[in-house]
Amino acid sequence: MSSEPLAPGAVIGIIGGGQLGRMLAMAAARLGFKTIVLEPDSNAPAAQVANTQIVADYDDPEALQQLADLCDVVTYEFENVPVKAVQWLEARVSVRPGSKALEVAQDRLLEKAMARELGAETALFAAISERGDLDEAMDITGLPAVLKTTRLGYDGKGQAKLLRPEDADTAFEAMLGQMAILESFVHFECEVSVVAARGLSGEVRAYDVAENVHRNHILHTSTVPSGLGPEVQSEALEIAAAIARHLDYVGVFAVEFFAVREGDRHRLLVNEIAPRVHNSGHWTEAACAISQFEQHIRAITGLPLGDPRRHSDCVMENLIGADIGRTAELAGEPDAVLHLYGKAEARPGRKMGHVTRISPRTTRS
Amino acid sequence: MSSEPLAPGAVIGIIGGGQLGRMLAMAAARLGFKTIVLEPDSNAPAAQVANTQIVADYDDPEALQQLADLCDVVTYEFENVPVKAVQWLEARVSVRPGSKALEVAQDRLLEKAMARELGAETALFAAISERGDLDEAMDITGLPAVLKTTRLGYDGKGQAKLLRPEDADTAFEAMLGQMAILESFVHFECEVSVVAARGLSGEVRAYDVAENVHRNHILHTSTVPSGLGPEVQSEALEIAAAIARHLDYVGVFAVEFFAVREGDRHRLLVNEIAPRVHNSGHWTEAACAISQFEQHIRAITGLPLGDPRRHSDCVMENLIGADIGRTAELAGEPDAVLHLYGKAEARPGRKMGHVTRISPRTTRS
Repeated sequence: MSSEPLAPGAVIGIIGGGQLGRMLAMAAARLGFKTIVLEPDSNAPAAQVANTQIVADYDDPEALQQLADLCDVVTYEFENVPVKAVQWLEARVSVRPGSKALEVAQDRLLEKAMARELGAETALFAAISERGDLDEAMDITGLPAVLKTTRLGYDGKGQAKLLRPEDADTAFEAMLGQMAILESFVHFECEVSVVAARGLSGEVRAYDVAENVHRNHILHTSTVPSGLGPEVQSEALEIAAAIARHLDYVGVFAVEFFAVREGDRHRLLVNEIAPRVHNSGHWTEAACAISQFEQHIRAITGLPLGDPRRHSDCVMENLIGADIGRTAELAGEPDAVLHLYGKAEARPGRKMGHVTRISPRTTRS
Repeated sequence: MSSEPLAPGAVIGIIGGGQLGRMLAMAAARLGFKTIVLEPDSNAPAAQVANTQIVADYDDPEALQQLADLCDVVTYEFENVPVKAVQWLEARVSVRPGSKALEVAQDRLLEKAMARELGAETALFAAISERGDLDEAMDITGLPAVLKTTRLGYDGKGQAKLLRPEDADTAFEAMLGQMAILESFVHFECEVSVVAARGLSGEVRAYDVAENVHRNHILHTSTVPSGLGPEVQSEALEIAAAIARHLDYVGVFAVEFFAVREGDRHRLLVNEIAPRVHNSGHWTEAACAISQFEQHIRAITGLPLGDPRRHSDCVMENLIGADIGRTAELAGEPDAVLHLYGKAEARPGRKMGHVTRISPRTTRS
């Protein structure tokens, strides 16, 4: 792997055309790079701002060949890109992050096993491939517990709660025969995340820990600084760095944690790993010199990582569905940095944009 | 003029495809607007990030018809757009800012006369239409003086210095028969500028005054805060606001001043007015919640103007020509926000990008 940075004018392929791809494409443009977005929807958010779009499925062989031919480096903006497509590409062009991180992130079992292997805590869990596994698994996790498909779940899709043993049948059926994982229900005080980057040189730089509130399984707000003490924050950053090193990762990634109150401090449990820029890092564009999007572009092009320190405190709020109607009102708030994604239709539950309210930095942690 | 803001998804036409148009297009995208760029060069900086480009001259009748048909509002990114084209458009679609500001900004005589009319000081000046005018003019301005074409000059083009009366012939010839203006040479201590916006509602909001250093007639650095005292800063902002009101201006504009030392304070002379986002306002993207580019988009779409307060002090440095080779080194500097324009060729004197170094805010003025 060469550590010579790509020069301005180099071409970055982005698999996926959603808002994350859009914000990556704009960050790439600001650094003088060109972008090609592979995305079947021709009016997708990222396609609107990229230099070029290849309108095709993510695993279309001709489209992948084009990416391999035209790009200096390829990245992806969501973790459900077919691993085979990325492996095929990796043999032909630099793909950062590569397929290894994707494989782990696509499988909740691999993800949790890796976190444990690296010495981090997770919820208690057990693998479920058939109905019978569930009874034993409940002994391991206790109740309440959450049954999740191991693959392709996000924003609460493919999940079922088990409050009593009698819920097992319904929950198992909701998995539609897919491999699943039963996880003990964690009585967390708060959810936090670390968004960090690992550069081509192996250097890891993390943004400050964000405290996240979800509504209807969708991120609602991220607040920085979080309520964690400095020691626990350091622990979160160390876990993130260990994961990145283990995966030989290049780019921005996020680790989501449950923080459980224990006396006067918190215990951290790894919940999920996202091998991409992350919704809980959107605040960085408003409160840091270098956003997570630019940081990812820097990492995958071999540029030095930017300084992740924040200059302001902030609260990022997602704008979901009809929230788009609040645009003018939000634009009128002082210190509110508004960011919309160019989506034509405001469906319920659809992420339409976000707003970050900044305020002078009050703490050093 | 309706004051109902345009809704996300509305279409903004941008006449001109340079770096200012590029940064406007990205700011428009972040607010959920679509952009159409009118620009003859198909690989121009703005075209790379806009939704659509119309590849045609700025006064091409069919292209203008398309802009009128497809856009909810039209703006421009440079002051040498043909006034007639803008007047034609104004009869068919909202153009903000309109042709009035363009007419004044395209004529150094009108510009200076307006500043005087509004009670602001300028250098001493006189109009030059033939060689004979120059002798009288030198009596008004004194020497040294600067002879400039009244139209189409920027970055030092179309200018000649007169140190002695004998320089008059050569200087006059350099004007190539164009209308010109002789201006007294101002022994300024520093150059400063105000970048401000006037909204549809008539409200004016100004960013902090920047202190500018030019090299070879091209802006080299802008530093905020400037060395002006608070009273002189207020005076600069008041002059800017008076100009905007006088022109019934909508959008972002810049007023450049010479600051002449007088005892323990400065006297301000209006030098130039730019009816557009301005190079000396690029720092706002790094040091304010709302950049000048977003502020312009807010103004022309009828959204509330953003808070122009800076959260950080900063120095913006232009990257000219071969400076593009410093990308990786600059990216390695902490607190340096880098912004490149996607230009393929790094010709000498060509603006390739800029870098803004931010630091914690030290003063309140």
